[in-house]
Amino acid sequence: MNKKAIGVFDSGVGGLTVAKEIMAQLPDERIIYFGDTARVPYGSKSEETVTRYTRQIIRFLMTKDVKAFVVACNTMSALSLSTVEKDLTLPIIGVVEPGAFVAGNATKNKKVGVIGTESTIRSGLYTRCLKRIDPEIEVIGKSCPLFCPLVEEGLIDDPVTEEMARRYLFGLMRQDIDTLIMGCTHYPLLKKTLAEIVGEKVTLVNPAYETARELRHLLKRLHLENEAAPAHYKPAHDFYVSDSAERFSEFAAKLLHIEGLSAQIVNIEDY
Amino acid sequence: MNKKAIGVFDSGVGGLTVAKEIMAQLPDERIIYFGDTARVPYGSKSEETVTRYTRQIIRFLMTKDVKAFVVACNTMSALSLSTVEKDLTLPIIGVVEPGAFVAGNATKNKKVGVIGTESTIRSGLYTRCLKRIDPEIEVIGKSCPLFCPLVEEGLIDDPVTEEMARRYLFGLMRQDIDTLIMGCTHYPLLKKTLAEIVGEKVTLVNPAYETARELRHLLKRLHLENEAAPAHYKPAHDFYVSDSAERFSEFAAKLLHIEGLSAQIVNIEDY
Repeated sequence: MNKKAIGVFDSGVGGLTVAKEIMAQLPDERIIYFGDTARVPYGSKSEETVTRYTRQIIRFLMTKDVKAFVVACNTMSALSLSTVEKDLTLPIIGVVEPGAFVAGNATKNKKVGVIGTESTIRSGLYTRCLKRIDPEIEVIGKSCPLFCPLVEEGLIDDPVTEEMARRYLFGLMRQDIDTLIMGCTHYPLLKKTLAEIVGEKVTLVNPAYETARELRHLLKRLHLENEAAPAHYKPAHDFYVSDSAERFSEFAAKLLHIEGLSAQIVNIEDY
Repeated sequence: MNKKAIGVFDSGVGGLTVAKEIMAQLPDERIIYFGDTARVPYGSKSEETVTRYTRQIIRFLMTKDVKAFVVACNTMSALSLSTVEKDLTLPIIGVVEPGAFVAGNATKNKKVGVIGTESTIRSGLYTRCLKRIDPEIEVIGKSCPLFCPLVEEGLIDDPVTEEMARRYLFGLMRQDIDTLIMGCTHYPLLKKTLAEIVGEKVTLVNPAYETARELRHLLKRLHLENEAAPAHYKPAHDFYVSDSAERFSEFAAKLLHIEGLSAQIVNIEDY
């Protein structure tokens, strides 16, 4: 069991920021990644559709015989995790709870901002998680639908992205937040721009880091760690997508520093 | 046969601009519209995936017993129409050929610009169609991936959209085009901004208008027109989507001036 891989999945490339964090914190664990590049983005889809897609992805990863799942996507974590985990015997974690946990502990004035996709913000899951930590925390959510397309267009450090960020964050800043959760796996790529706008007094929370940390604890608790790995073991990760494998592979190879990374195509609707 | 409906389909709401034009030019024809709101956008998907999705949509519309199909989406028209029409006995038309036809006749200096999604531009179909009309026409294509998200965010008349339009059109304007094809059904909604940037000397072509005209000719030629319609007949159009029916219905009701319009949900993956 312990030599089996971790199934990590997202609607596209965004979850690779979570995979990268897992590779850094759990270097002996093998990852099987799935990105739903055919049906991306999930951020404006309904709960019903996102849950159907999440189930298909889990069924696909089951065929790869994984030992645990990481939902490396805020939208799927917010809309579908609590539903799909009911049918699962294998452990599964998302990015929302770990992200909320750090933010809840970081805030001093108890005013936390959350930015994410329309569906993530509408779900209110970050708010519920933060209120569970401390009912007095005030949570201000704001959806930023243009951030993902701007990142995918490569406008990472650009006046247009800055202008949109200023508009999106204006209301949050006026409400005097001291902590801001980057509630979409694309957003950490905009960290520099976001940090400049919110200033030094606001802590930016990247749930990817905390998710990898929680995964480590989970594997330890369930005795699922790959402890038998020899020294300097380099696990061979596998990557699957539902469309445009070449473009994905290029992006992933660069982000993860894995030469020759080559993703395979899966017809996810068959699962 | 003549009383049957026309199947009109798109990846989402964009094709409604084509449906509207058909309603205006062929007021006696009933429309059954399908928008793939669960898997939108199609603009960066591969030919294989777009063709698989197009086939599913055609199979669904077949169950509604239509007499003809209009592919009201530039990406599907450019990537998949020539493949799917081979298996069909019913007539089918797309938006690319009609759009190219008008542009080919409008240009005087034989320099035509085309803007569209990544997949549409990459397909090169507008170029091939224009070269067929006149091999001397020079076609300059430019994909504008942010236009759709900007329209869907409602930034129709906004400095950010203007800035992006200026960047996208800069190269085309330097090459002295006198005709510009709005090669995505969302783009006519940005007509005012685009017209301001390209100026009076450039003719803006909206393929939707010409597609409705070609449909009228096609139905006439095949004796498929609904001629038996009584005076002041108002056909009852039907609308289907794969997700978020409420949001779609709201948008469509406003655009088409149809009160109480209510789209139904279809699980398109079942077809």
